[in-house]
Amino acid sequence: MIMERRRALSFAQDNYENLIHDLFEFIKIPSISTDPEWSVLENAANWVSQRLKKAGVQKTQIFQTGGSPIVYGEYQPAHPPACTVLIYGHYDVQPVDPLTEWLSPPFDPKINGEHLFGRGSSDMKGQIVASIGAVEAILSQSNLPIAFKFIFEGEEEIGSPNLIPFLQGHSKLLSCNFALVPDTGMIAKDTPTITYGLRGLCCFELRVFGPKNDLHSGQYGGIVHNPAQVLCELIAGMHDSKGKITLPGFYDKVLPVSEDERRMLSELPQDDNSYKTQTGVNYLWGEHGFSAAERSKIRPTLEVNGLLSGYTGTGMKTVIPSRAMAKISMRLVPDQDPEDIRRQLVVYLEQHAPDTIRWELEQMTGHPSSVSERFSPVMRSLSKALETVWHTVPVFERDGSSIPIVGAIKKYMGIESVMTGFGLPDDNIHAPNEKLHLPTWKRGINALIHFFYNLSESAV
Amino acid sequence: MIMERRRALSFAQDNYENLIHDLFEFIKIPSISTDPEWSVLENAANWVSQRLKKAGVQKTQIFQTGGSPIVYGEYQPAHPPACTVLIYGHYDVQPVDPLTEWLSPPFDPKINGEHLFGRGSSDMKGQIVASIGAVEAILSQSNLPIAFKFIFEGEEEIGSPNLIPFLQGHSKLLSCNFALVPDTGMIAKDTPTITYGLRGLCCFELRVFGPKNDLHSGQYGGIVHNPAQVLCELIAGMHDSKGKITLPGFYDKVLPVSEDERRMLSELPQDDNSYKTQTGVNYLWGEHGFSAAERSKIRPTLEVNGLLSGYTGTGMKTVIPSRAMAKISMRLVPDQDPEDIRRQLVVYLEQHAPDTIRWELEQMTGHPSSVSERFSPVMRSLSKALETVWHTVPVFERDGSSIPIVGAIKKYMGIESVMTGFGLPDDNIHAPNEKLHLPTWKRGINALIHFFYNLSESAV
Repeated sequence: MIMERRRALSFAQDNYENLIHDLFEFIKIPSISTDPEWSVLENAANWVSQRLKKAGVQKTQIFQTGGSPIVYGEYQPAHPPACTVLIYGHYDVQPVDPLTEWLSPPFDPKINGEHLFGRGSSDMKGQIVASIGAVEAILSQSNLPIAFKFIFEGEEEIGSPNLIPFLQGHSKLLSCNFALVPDTGMIAKDTPTITYGLRGLCCFELRVFGPKNDLHSGQYGGIVHNPAQVLCELIAGMHDSKGKITLPGFYDKVLPVSEDERRMLSELPQDDNSYKTQTGVNYLWGEHGFSAAERSKIRPTLEVNGLLSGYTGTGMKTVIPSRAMAKISMRLVPDQDPEDIRRQLVVYLEQHAPDTIRWELEQMTGHPSSVSERFSPVMRSLSKALETVWHTVPVFERDGSSIPIVGAIKKYMGIESVMTGFGLPDDNIHAPNEKLHLPTWKRGINALIHFFYNLSESAV
Repeated sequence: MIMERRRALSFAQDNYENLIHDLFEFIKIPSISTDPEWSVLENAANWVSQRLKKAGVQKTQIFQTGGSPIVYGEYQPAHPPACTVLIYGHYDVQPVDPLTEWLSPPFDPKINGEHLFGRGSSDMKGQIVASIGAVEAILSQSNLPIAFKFIFEGEEEIGSPNLIPFLQGHSKLLSCNFALVPDTGMIAKDTPTITYGLRGLCCFELRVFGPKNDLHSGQYGGIVHNPAQVLCELIAGMHDSKGKITLPGFYDKVLPVSEDERRMLSELPQDDNSYKTQTGVNYLWGEHGFSAAERSKIRPTLEVNGLLSGYTGTGMKTVIPSRAMAKISMRLVPDQDPEDIRRQLVVYLEQHAPDTIRWELEQMTGHPSSVSERFSPVMRSLSKALETVWHTVPVFERDGSSIPIVGAIKKYMGIESVMTGFGLPDDNIHAPNEKLHLPTWKRGINALIHFFYNLSESAV
């Protein structure tokens, strides 16, 4: 097995330029799932399916859903497998606006030094290509007693609305020992990272309606309640002076985090200065009584993601807008329930919205947080693989982001996920100039190869 | 003179369809001054200049400014005039967004029943055509001992930035006994209205800057201060729970309004129900302790005219925006000073903006309020003319809107203005589906003809 492992690593080395080429092709498909062009998402699904086949995955299938298709792939070894891994990915990407802030076009990937720039390079087309590349290397060399299954969706960035029904309807097809979710990142370039917890997510659009049309502020200023002002007041009231969220009952189900976990968090190589450098702010901000790392990983938050009202062009237009809109999302922690949060927001609005306006709340998505088992044999196999490549023990962390499948696959199929990934904190995911650090990505491919060999050698 | 007056009125009657045609032509020039296309504004200036000539105004001239041109016109009677009237107008119009809410294209005028729809139909291309039409009728019939001067600017809707320098540089050219400013409206269809007071106006763009780019709210939610949230908090704090504006010193220079004026205001045929019908709201809102009419005419206000931050498209994008913007304007009353107001806003922001963000304030315009003499012979001539046409004594009112020339021409040239106009409260000025009520407009033309004859008969 040692020779095989070496040959697989050597195959990956020789295949590296091809994988870069593949990643270029993949990024060029502008598979934005918010406000989607369906044919483009289908192109991305087809691309992934073809690439799986080329890697030696015998069986692939594209499932239509109410939205983007789900790509399924399966490789069964000659002998009954000792272990079945379900590898998850999402082929959709975030929108690219503000487009003017991109230094090169988001869907025309460019390599600059050690970085590959393009939308999805880090989140997570690069991670998908790395995973397929690792499996390809293994299948090219050996007959490891591991079965590989793949599920790639095209709606992660909009909250995976069609994934849960799919899981529920295909639990046998997807049956596995665990899921590998390479959609999290590393906390620093030299710090391999295993993520064992994720925050949940609720997204809303709040609309406030005032007069029947935009009004002249000279004629009506002082008479009608300005919906933009009301919206601002409602949003302002959602945090108190200590950075706590004021929705009634918001913290009721938040579980305390063990001292052990808080200690681990405090030992991560992430301090206030690193956050300031990453974000470009002079002062951090957040809920009083918690460190920045805690606030971003194990504490819930509420964010305004967008605001729109009235006249926003050049110059001035003295209107009282007829409506105002905010996109608002909450990151949730165990055991907050998305449906509770929606109710709390409704109660808050009922309590605080004045009679002078009408409001409407649309929920865009909602899924709970998740925390995985930290001390399993699978986790040990992954940890050892990362250590082999980076020559340092990986850190275990809880990530502040959200990946709907992780909670869902546990809830509906009882399956634990292991999460890792080879993106870096400064990859600008969800932002202009998203990039991938290629040396880290290459190490990641090697680490996944080691992981699968470790798995086959351990008793899963 | 009685026969002449009749013949002039009869001329106007015969000319009515031509004036409608002219107004169509004029509206078709999309002379938006916010974010302008200069050639279009020049077309509008040329159109006005040509139309003056056609009406018999001997001398016209177009003055270039740093922005839109100013059109000047002058008619001198054969004998030295008993009175010189300076007629003011603005040929620019408001932007048309949201375009989707227009039932017919804003620059393709349409008549539907008694209404003419199109941007500028009421504010104030219709009023300009009415004024020119009235003068044309007079010049066609008689040799009234009145000199007419005209000044038409193309920047009223953006605060007339080039008008004050022009007034200062051309005081001799513009010398007159009084200015007629037909840019105000009637408070109801059967209530001819003379406006003797206007509010002032200050406009600002407030920008709040947070992280260097949009951030992933999963990675950074809880760590950085969200500029959209901060902007909302700053705006929310600008009013207290009684609808008072909290900028430090905002009310210090507000003069008390006499009991006589408050009584007049209370007798206007505008009650809460009429405001509700006009605006489509179920409940009015505003500063405690004042009636709706008072709040909109003699009390200062602060409005949010626009909000923009982050992602505002379909669906969701879980970003922490890097910036947030609000357009904010204040309507001012005597003796509030626009420069004081700017300073107060800066002090407010210095006191309330947190260190976690950076802010920037740009002033777009600022001009003071004005109140004219109510009991002059000119006012009596106008009042009598309106009464002749509508068979009811006109009301005198203070309007909540702002017309920069009125304060400026008084300040720099000592000239009083009389303000009237034939737009109606439901004309949707500054909003989609702006319209003009044609029967009222036609009466307005007749009223102006009577006004000029009354003037010539009285000792001005």
